[in-house]
Amino acid sequence: LSRLVVLGDGSWGTALAGLARDGEHDVSIWSRKQPNSAPLARAQGVIIALPAQVIGDVLAALALPPGAALIIAAKGIERGTHRFMHQVVAGTCPKNPALILSGPSFAEDVTRGLPTAVTLAAEHLEVARYWAAQLARPHFRIYASDDLMGVAIGGSLKNVLAIACGISDGKKLGASARAALTARGFAELSRLGKALGARAETLVGLSGLGDLLLTCSSEQSRNYAFGKRLGEGMPVEEALAASSGVVEGAYSAEAALALAKENGIAMPITQAVAAIIEDGATPESMIRSLLDRPLGIE
Amino acid sequence: LSRLVVLGDGSWGTALAGLARDGEHDVSIWSRKQPNSAPLARAQGVIIALPAQVIGDVLAALALPPGAALIIAAKGIERGTHRFMHQVVAGTCPKNPALILSGPSFAEDVTRGLPTAVTLAAEHLEVARYWAAQLARPHFRIYASDDLMGVAIGGSLKNVLAIACGISDGKKLGASARAALTARGFAELSRLGKALGARAETLVGLSGLGDLLLTCSSEQSRNYAFGKRLGEGMPVEEALAASSGVVEGAYSAEAALALAKENGIAMPITQAVAAIIEDGATPESMIRSLLDRPLGIE
Repeated sequence: LSRLVVLGDGSWGTALAGLARDGEHDVSIWSRKQPNSAPLARAQGVIIALPAQVIGDVLAALALPPGAALIIAAKGIERGTHRFMHQVVAGTCPKNPALILSGPSFAEDVTRGLPTAVTLAAEHLEVARYWAAQLARPHFRIYASDDLMGVAIGGSLKNVLAIACGISDGKKLGASARAALTARGFAELSRLGKALGARAETLVGLSGLGDLLLTCSSEQSRNYAFGKRLGEGMPVEEALAASSGVVEGAYSAEAALALAKENGIAMPITQAVAAIIEDGATPESMIRSLLDRPLGIE
Repeated sequence: LSRLVVLGDGSWGTALAGLARDGEHDVSIWSRKQPNSAPLARAQGVIIALPAQVIGDVLAALALPPGAALIIAAKGIERGTHRFMHQVVAGTCPKNPALILSGPSFAEDVTRGLPTAVTLAAEHLEVARYWAAQLARPHFRIYASDDLMGVAIGGSLKNVLAIACGISDGKKLGASARAALTARGFAELSRLGKALGARAETLVGLSGLGDLLLTCSSEQSRNYAFGKRLGEGMPVEEALAASSGVVEGAYSAEAALALAKENGIAMPITQAVAAIIEDGATPESMIRSLLDRPLGIE
């Protein structure tokens, strides 16, 4: 049994803390509102359940014990630097092993004890296996992986693509259109993954495809719900304000597009989402540009 | 413009006939109830929108003009022979080019003019391109492919996996569980595809992944709705009787499992669905066997 600190008291941090307590670990929750609330110095594992865009700053300000495992339970790409979360953590805390916990798992499903399966990745497979065994519960299965980049890309891109699926549904384009958009979106995610060294098996696994299709098809997803508001005609600022919690895909879209350009990869759906959020393009123009692309070979 | 006959007057046959008429083709509909209703002898293209399990018998009884393109708009594996539909058609009509039209496309979405994107495969890419150009409409995009086997596998397996997803939802296991099941199901589909010579790009494309996730997430899918009834506790025979139209996955499950065994491939979800339909296993036993599998490496 381990001494764990969960950074973040949002729905996901609270759900993960509950799971760890069920597993009889010694668990404290730290929050930005109460920065002295957790005994960080003695932690063996730190679960990072904070919004992706603040993780760099928060970790730089905290005194984390060297050697403690940093288990990232956040998904996204840092704006400006275009770094994935494990790169942010490794840059800030080079003496700590960084892991990513990711996969199709709504906090509410986990809290209710419904069956869930996720991936835990670390640079070294033994580290991933050790923490997978520590944190798994009968209804919360954890598969170990050593493909950090593959897990990071799936978790980040799915939020961007969920916005596109939400827009399609907001415009009432139908289930068939959304399915085509999701499949084409997965092809974009896979192209970027391949260019950045992710393994194909990871991309089609729980943390890639599994999480993508959960996020792209459910009102419970904040990113999907945000896109749906855009599709219904709400302006970007208003749709962001109407969201409960952080709409990570709205921040990651620009960074994902920059990575695509750096690597010479076509990501038309990501590009359309970024244009809507960053440049005031209309959802109509996105639909038109996607539908009017020349007929190609699949 | 072409002279086309559509075999089958169900919702999909009717939707495709409507599309072809919109494209100003000369279109007749043939049905089993009115077997003399269509001028087959002069057809340049025959769209086969019949239940998969009757196609072999129907084609053997009809006098199709040699050389006419046979465009299969049905998905499934023939029971007993374990042949995919393009193999059934090639066996019965060796002098006709066989094509498969497949992808995420509910008949209702197509009829309402909502945007849809599908794949059309033939042995020779030029044949697929020719018919894609003939049948495409501004809101019904068709991508050409020469991977018949890849398209056939996606279309057949998705129906089996949709039953599993329906069972999960019928038992109220939550969106996270269904997403994990779908991702694991796609891994099964991909393993079988790889063994049978399908291309990976086809499997992650519209006719594979795209159609899988449409079918696995919508009440509009007969296979999903059938599975949901099973998950809610309805016996197999009763759930079949309650279905409007043919539940193709209920027939293909046994054949898919036989192909898996022939090729030495593990397909635990397909196996569980076949056991429920063929051997009277309970949905509970399926859930248990899937949840209790040993923790592995993803």
